[in-house]
Amino acid sequence: MNPPFFFSSGRGLTVREIGELTKATLRAGADPERRISGIAALDRATIRDLTFLDRGRFVEKAGASVAGACVTTEGLAPRLAERVCVLCVAEPYRAFVEAARALFPEALRPSSLFDASGVAATALVHPAALQRRSDRWLHRSPTAPRAEVGSGTLIGAGAVIGPNVRIGRNCSIGARASITNALLGDRVIVHPGCSIGQDGFGFVMGPRGHRKVPQVGRVIIQDDVEVGANSTIDRGGVRDTVIGEGTKIDNLVQIGHNVTIGRNCIIVSQCGISGSCTINDHVVLAGQVGLADNVTIGEGAMVGAQSGVSADIPAGEKWFGYPAMRGRAYMRGIMKLQQLAAGRKRGVDLNAAGDMDDHPADKG
Amino acid sequence: MNPPFFFSSGRGLTVREIGELTKATLRAGADPERRISGIAALDRATIRDLTFLDRGRFVEKAGASVAGACVTTEGLAPRLAERVCVLCVAEPYRAFVEAARALFPEALRPSSLFDASGVAATALVHPAALQRRSDRWLHRSPTAPRAEVGSGTLIGAGAVIGPNVRIGRNCSIGARASITNALLGDRVIVHPGCSIGQDGFGFVMGPRGHRKVPQVGRVIIQDDVEVGANSTIDRGGVRDTVIGEGTKIDNLVQIGHNVTIGRNCIIVSQCGISGSCTINDHVVLAGQVGLADNVTIGEGAMVGAQSGVSADIPAGEKWFGYPAMRGRAYMRGIMKLQQLAAGRKRGVDLNAAGDMDDHPADKG
Amino acid sequence: MNPPFFFSSGRGLTVREIGELTKATLRAGADPERRISGIAALDRATIRDLTFLDRGRFVEKAGASVAGACVTTEGLAPRLAERVCVLCVAEPYRAFVEAARALFPEALRPSSLFDASGVAATALVHPAALQRRSDRWLHRSPTAPRAEVGSGTLIGAGAVIGPNVRIGRNCSIGARASITNALLGDRVIVHPGCSIGQDGFGFVMGPRGHRKVPQVGRVIIQDDVEVGANSTIDRGGVRDTVIGEGTKIDNLVQIGHNVTIGRNCIIVSQCGISGSCTINDHVVLAGQVGLADNVTIGEGAMVGAQSGVSADIPAGEKWFGYPAMRGRAYMRGIMKLQQLAAGRKRGVDLNAAGDMDDHPADKG
Repeated sequence: MNPPFFFSSGRGLTVREIGELTKATLRAGADPERRISGIAALDRATIRDLTFLDRGRFVEKAGASVAGACVTTEGLAPRLAERVCVLCVAEPYRAFVEAARALFPEALRPSSLFDASGVAATALVHPAALQRRSDRWLHRSPTAPRAEVGSGTLIGAGAVIGPNVRIGRNCSIGARASITNALLGDRVIVHPGCSIGQDGFGFVMGPRGHRKVPQVGRVIIQDDVEVGANSTIDRGGVRDTVIGEGTKIDNLVQIGHNVTIGRNCIIVSQCGISGSCTINDHVVLAGQVGLADNVTIGEGAMVGAQSGVSADIPAGEKWFGYPAMRGRAYMRGIMKLQQLAAGRKRGVDLNAAGDMDDHPADKG
Repeated sequence: MNPPFFFSSGRGLTVREIGELTKATLRAGADPERRISGIAALDRATIRDLTFLDRGRFVEKAGASVAGACVTTEGLAPRLAERVCVLCVAEPYRAFVEAARALFPEALRPSSLFDASGVAATALVHPAALQRRSDRWLHRSPTAPRAEVGSGTLIGAGAVIGPNVRIGRNCSIGARASITNALLGDRVIVHPGCSIGQDGFGFVMGPRGHRKVPQVGRVIIQDDVEVGANSTIDRGGVRDTVIGEGTKIDNLVQIGHNVTIGRNCIIVSQCGISGSCTINDHVVLAGQVGLADNVTIGEGAMVGAQSGVSADIPAGEKWFGYPAMRGRAYMRGIMKLQQLAAGRKRGVDLNAAGDMDDHPADKG
Repeated sequence: MNPPFFFSSGRGLTVREIGELTKATLRAGADPERRISGIAALDRATIRDLTFLDRGRFVEKAGASVAGACVTTEGLAPRLAERVCVLCVAEPYRAFVEAARALFPEALRPSSLFDASGVAATALVHPAALQRRSDRWLHRSPTAPRAEVGSGTLIGAGAVIGPNVRIGRNCSIGARASITNALLGDRVIVHPGCSIGQDGFGFVMGPRGHRKVPQVGRVIIQDDVEVGANSTIDRGGVRDTVIGEGTKIDNLVQIGHNVTIGRNCIIVSQCGISGSCTINDHVVLAGQVGLADNVTIGEGAMVGAQSGVSADIPAGEKWFGYPAMRGRAYMRGIMKLQQLAAGRKRGVDLNAAGDMDDHPADKG
């Protein structure tokens, strides 16, 4: 790939070191001492780069690759020229990621931009009482006007941290994020521009105007959560808005008041989760999904891109469509429709369109 | 609920005081002197909290509640144990909100985070000429490079207020909002991260590039409007973008140039309103609705979640679907489709999916 | 229109000057020395304003206009009263825009709000090494912690520019934008609140948690690109995210990692472009469109509003629907459906709904 202006891998790793890290088998003839300092897609990789080859569109281009090293399966290895050091594993992408993490440890969480560590001078942390502690945080009087920030946490330029907010250890808070009325655990990553903890959207409607409903809950963000750029998480009205441990949220996502999200969920970009929804552990919502308020999504369920969900979804099911339906019901309906409209001459390609509910989180 | 770290209700209210405020009838045996200092959902409420019981999922849990007080209807009152002070009213949620407003007056509008009142030291108000006035504002030469801010208005940390912007009295401008080319009335709430008054998206397209169309209109935001976090409102091109009195806008909403929105509308999260649309008074747009440009929505109309509207909608109608259609036409079509696709064995549950056009604004 | 508090056209232009600029023919009786200082829509234009009359809803109101001057076609000219100076051209709106650009040159790109030129005092540009250069930029050691900004570039209040970022000449970076890991060309406009260059959303999923994938690519934004308010552009994972020359992006758009967008594309508000998509030159995506990851959109293709695209779209085609289909296939299907559901009594108005794929970018 092009010179990595923004990340440097230091001395890099040898092919042998990568092999040990990923428990790979080196193809005969591979130079175990070749030094790798970068990562790149197969078509861009140079002699200094590690790449990977998996099923998919790159298989036919594999023969032309001049990558320094490539992790792939035993079956695909013959596709790569002898000049490439080939490392064989069962799951090439997973192995590639492990090597990439070792090559670029500083890319595993955002920096504060203007400081090697700690709180950027331009961050607005309320007020003077910034404390770095080895213990997570001390419980304090609820009225003490102080924010607490754990050791190792970075707070980016221009970020705004409101009164009484508590942020755990080794977090990264992005530039220009605002966080109020919230408690954050350890290793939480909040990307730039997020707004967390503002009023939920609650009104009692009436013909002569809408009465604002006080929102006195909080936002609780547990350990290892990541929140994408410019996303919004409202604080609760009469309960807390809770984001469970390990859940990853993409950019421009809206999370309404009183929402509870479980552990290790994936919420892709531009999803909208209305107030008081309950999302259980390991749920995946693909991009631009909308949930009506008070919906419950069962553990491990997946919802396809752009779906509109107004009914509860049982655990483990895949739903898709507008309105969302179980499995391929929506797609089957659309296919039927196309047959009717075209006199059965042309249906939509069910396989192509069905990709919309494929796995969204791992896009390299 | 959990200790309210971020809001304190002071001395609270007695059950008697809540009864007077909400014009409720106390159930026999209720202690009128019990003191209430918090609010909570029924399943979380403690002896110090007020809660409410209405139709819906909490009715079956009501017997277990240990809330200090509960507003409900005469009909539902017997569901609550004797330990709960029960206040009977016709509209429990409305009464609950009135009591909550009295308990938490400071939650009725956002603070400036870093000051008890006024403009945060870190807000960037253009330039030196900040004035607090009891009169709304003085008309001035159009070229005077000064912003004016009314008395009682709070401007949050890191907010950016451009030249000549005028903001009325008792407004709250959120952290990191940017406001340019705009005039705001009184009691306007702008949540964190909003961008108001930047260029509309106007280009004359051509094969060799797109010519930018100058955008010389303004944004006019009338009294009592609320704009959610990270929402965007473009200024007009050849007319003004206008948001009418009392209209409430949720997070991540896009409002294009030249749009006119009437009074007391509700625009739920992630709606996109294209350029030059006209939305009349009391319109409700549920979440993720998209309007094509130049569409007119009649007074009191409602548009269901995720609908795509490219035709004018007459006053008072409910539309839903993609493309949006009157009433349940879209849902009837989808149901018919499912019957056809499944050989009539399984249709979609019309009642469940029909909830998507339910009332979105009042989610507790 | 109302007094333009925020933009002033200086001395303005005479009708004769506007005629020369737009190669228009003046209608007999028009006063070539009438001075025009503003622009407005036809129903708002005063004696000092230029307006335009084209096909559409304003034709019937044309007779009542008191505009100082109006560009229109020969065919529509008789609709305007004698008091209006009429300028006849083949393409009225295009001519109007050229005159507007001449009247309001300062509206062609955003100012830095707090400075006549250059970098706002409150912008956070990393670190001390800000340089204005007549040459575009010097290539430097990848580890040098310095951002470079070209001559004539404005950086708005509160903007955050990360280490090693390079910004070309005559750009405008909006208030509170954050830009990291990115290289920008000349004349790029970034509106307020954008987040550019943060981590892409890449995880290797697993039952015990998701492993973050290092994102070591960059964001490359070529000359004359415009990015709307609060939009997000993630940097690449293993390649760069690239936005081609002249492409215009509206507000609240999400662009995932590794995406390549060609030249002169139009991406309307709230579109979501998943990781590794390829969008060729001159593509138009209407509002709220979603692309699944790895989709390719051919040159000159158009995608209608709210469409969900999971298959490649060939060059020059128009697709629409959920899932997106070629031409009017989706609409034909929906129409057929309505006929079936209603016993053929009422179909949807295909012409009205078909407007959803109309041209979105030029809304005045």
